[in-house]
Amino acid sequence: MKELNDVEVIINNKRYTLCGYESDAYLQMVASYINDKYDLFKQQDSYARLETDIKNTLMQINIADDYFKEKEKVRTLEDELEAKNNELFDIKHEVISLQTKLDELKKELDKEKEDSIEAQKQIVKLETELKEREHKK
Amino acid sequence: MKELNDVEVIINNKRYTLCGYESDAYLQMVASYINDKYDLFKQQDSYARLETDIKNTLMQINIADDYFKEKEKVRTLEDELEAKNNELFDIKHEVISLQTKLDELKKELDKEKEDSIEAQKQIVKLETELKEREHKK
Repeated sequence: MKELNDVEVIINNKRYTLCGYESDAYLQMVASYINDKYDLFKQQDSYARLETDIKNTLMQINIADDYFKEKEKVRTLEDELEAKNNELFDIKHEVISLQTKLDELKKELDKEKEDSIEAQKQIVKLETELKEREHKK
Repeated sequence: MKELNDVEVIINNKRYTLCGYESDAYLQMVASYINDKYDLFKQQDSYARLETDIKNTLMQINIADDYFKEKEKVRTLEDELEAKNNELFDIKHEVISLQTKLDELKKELDKEKEDSIEAQKQIVKLETELKEREHKK
């Protein structure tokens, strides 16, 4: 079970103590991500002139936009993964089919080789018989 | 090229006009996502007693947390996809190797069948010779 932690973060130059199950490292990463966004916003001259309220909403929309973009990536990757799984399923069937053909061919070859030994024996037998007849003449 | 749009959204009961390249549908989805978070927050009695500043920071952290969770999903899916691609690469090699074996075996079988026809001809020839000798006696 995860432990409840008190974690201190600094966001937009203000100190907050957060109480939750997330690790200190994770919350520092989240804080740093939000602070980077504030830095980018503040680089725009027009940002300073906005009301606090719209500043907050813009920040929320900006983070939510990152979220939805990742969500879209997840969807795309899930589709790709499904396609790969289907491809793998088909190719695994192909492997089984090829192995079955290979086994059948090996059996046919073994049978053919056995028949060949029999035929060679038969030839030797007939040749011997012919030679014996030759001698009996 | 995308067009610049003015889109009106309502977030936390306030109307905002956003100017950007995102579609109206996309921004309404984002607004609805943020409003759902406000609704959840407001269900907690303690939320009302918080200062506006901490309320905003909590919202930012909450959305950023969703973002990082999706980002983690993307990482996991990318790893899975890489593993599948490696598996596919290996299995495609196996298919090629099986097809090569199959071709070799087919050639061997054809050779064996040709030899068998030759052996049968030889047997027939020898048997005929033997019969002829029989008649000449």
